[in-house]
Amino acid sequence: MSVSPVLALTTGEPAGVGPELAVMLATEAPAAGAADHRVVAVGDPDLLAERAAALGRPLELVELAPHEAPPAPCPGRLPVWPVPLRAPCRPGVLDTRNADYVLETLDRAIRGCRDGEAAGLVTAPLHKAVILEAGHAGFRGHTEYLRDACGVDEVVMMLATDRALHAEAPDWRGDPALRVALATTHLPLREVSDAVTPERLTRVLRILDADLRRWFGVAAPRIAVCGLNPHAGEGGHLGREELEVIAPTLARLRQEGLTLDGPLPADTLFTPRHLAGVDAVLAMYHDQGLPVLKYAGFGRAANITLGLPLVRTSVDHGTALDLAGRGEADPGSLAVAVALAADMARRGGHA
Amino acid sequence: MSVSPVLALTTGEPAGVGPELAVMLATEAPAAGAADHRVVAVGDPDLLAERAAALGRPLELVELAPHEAPPAPCPGRLPVWPVPLRAPCRPGVLDTRNADYVLETLDRAIRGCRDGEAAGLVTAPLHKAVILEAGHAGFRGHTEYLRDACGVDEVVMMLATDRALHAEAPDWRGDPALRVALATTHLPLREVSDAVTPERLTRVLRILDADLRRWFGVAAPRIAVCGLNPHAGEGGHLGREELEVIAPTLARLRQEGLTLDGPLPADTLFTPRHLAGVDAVLAMYHDQGLPVLKYAGFGRAANITLGLPLVRTSVDHGTALDLAGRGEADPGSLAVAVALAADMARRGGHA
Repeated sequence: MSVSPVLALTTGEPAGVGPELAVMLATEAPAAGAADHRVVAVGDPDLLAERAAALGRPLELVELAPHEAPPAPCPGRLPVWPVPLRAPCRPGVLDTRNADYVLETLDRAIRGCRDGEAAGLVTAPLHKAVILEAGHAGFRGHTEYLRDACGVDEVVMMLATDRALHAEAPDWRGDPALRVALATTHLPLREVSDAVTPERLTRVLRILDADLRRWFGVAAPRIAVCGLNPHAGEGGHLGREELEVIAPTLARLRQEGLTLDGPLPADTLFTPRHLAGVDAVLAMYHDQGLPVLKYAGFGRAANITLGLPLVRTSVDHGTALDLAGRGEADPGSLAVAVALAADMARRGGHA
Repeated sequence: MSVSPVLALTTGEPAGVGPELAVMLATEAPAAGAADHRVVAVGDPDLLAERAAALGRPLELVELAPHEAPPAPCPGRLPVWPVPLRAPCRPGVLDTRNADYVLETLDRAIRGCRDGEAAGLVTAPLHKAVILEAGHAGFRGHTEYLRDACGVDEVVMMLATDRALHAEAPDWRGDPALRVALATTHLPLREVSDAVTPERLTRVLRILDADLRRWFGVAAPRIAVCGLNPHAGEGGHLGREELEVIAPTLARLRQEGLTLDGPLPADTLFTPRHLAGVDAVLAMYHDQGLPVLKYAGFGRAANITLGLPLVRTSVDHGTALDLAGRGEADPGSLAVAVALAADMARRGGHA
């Protein structure tokens, strides 16, 4: 019997919707059958209290000392690892003076995961431009920051919908959970073809296979791999990368014991016949895989970083500055991100 | 009160599922509320009779003379414009000798549309490779064949799900009809960026706007346009085509009176907030738009060729040689293609 895992939730950009999503999550009763876990917010306690008051949601904030165990989970109570804001913050108004605050919440959470205070990390959205403007010129985003902080060479971005949370939604139509990982991420489209190399595909597929086993409890992962070109190249008529790069790489990896379908045409892969029994899809690039994932899991999808020595999930949306402070943001994606992190932490033996 | 439009249905590759899908459609009672229309199959009557017998479906084939009006629609009866096979045909077995037969069915249907015998054309799948092998080296597919036969310079490929047919499906979840048109179609991915030019976007968007008005009864079409790069280029950080090509082209077209949203990130565009009130989405390339369309409309989507002087719809699948002759193919897409063609013909004033 495992103890309920502790998850560090960084509340992200203070002018965005992150803080109020944390408040919403902490003040709502968990869904029936939800995984047992304890969320610790990482951020400014006064900011969180202010947002709770603005939303009219009574909230007891419990500031934890380093290595102090959080209390049992209880709706209306939110344990916090306190990090003070650098400047006052109004919803919707960015301030470069708080860029260091955002990074400090991340550092605190990473330290907590490393030291065993937390079993995983869930991140609310940050605002990349304001961190760049504040002078952190090399900042590329959460994922790269975590990669460097953890000292690994490659990470894999995967988005997933959550079957259990879908099942409660009125429009759920019985799809199994859908998981889509990306071979390349934030590249201009004209750079994608050259970036899909045997080396990259090999690293990404090994990480995907290993992490489906470790964090998702899949004993023998089956991965469906998209082609790069339309119709997966149609036998070479619409591009030769499938014949020259993708198919030979998949053949080598099958010899290592990976179970891989493909390369398959992306427009027929996302249908019941091809998805049956598949544990994850590998898309070759961002807009090949994410439109269908976000359509399928709208508001109930989360982002997962694979290849790290720790559990990390994230919402699938941005700071939504136009909604901040109004209580209109949808905590659905954060709820999925937390539930997935809890499941992963439990399966990965970190609980 | 319009007469029920006549639709020419080319039965496509004789060794594929096309002939039996035509038989299925003709022997099933139309769905309640289905549009009133008369389907005339174009193909070999003996082949259709053979497939009907193999499926155990009684079917009366009515061979029509040129310009002979088809009888009123009736389940179990299928009017035919006869075109004889060139060689015997077994399900699943391709024969180059029948390539000319396939092209002749198309020519007969096009002639029928031009001469006023039919109000529109619906095509079952053909097999491109066998037509190429038979010596028609320039053959690129149905769409290009029709473009050349009609003497137009540019056509636009659009896929659509059908709301009415969705509403009868047990898993329908209330999505409005989704229509996705493509700025580029069957190109290797590495050629896409250069193919997205102001000239092409202008031609494609004018055709899309005009045909939504003419064939779909949309008085003031609103079109959502995807960016080319992930996050629609993120202000130039992930590619400059949005800033340099797409946005200026959309600005010019707005001055012509087109209503255009975008360029928008493809992975957030296909969500209720952005799709509300949108009549069609323009994706920049094949795998940006079609995976989500086919996921959303699985088995209930059809392909439409815009920019032609006639109505043309098609199934969204191939010849399925492995299923041919077994009665296991799903006529869902053909039913949508026929219903859409009937609606388009009626709205376009061709009925």
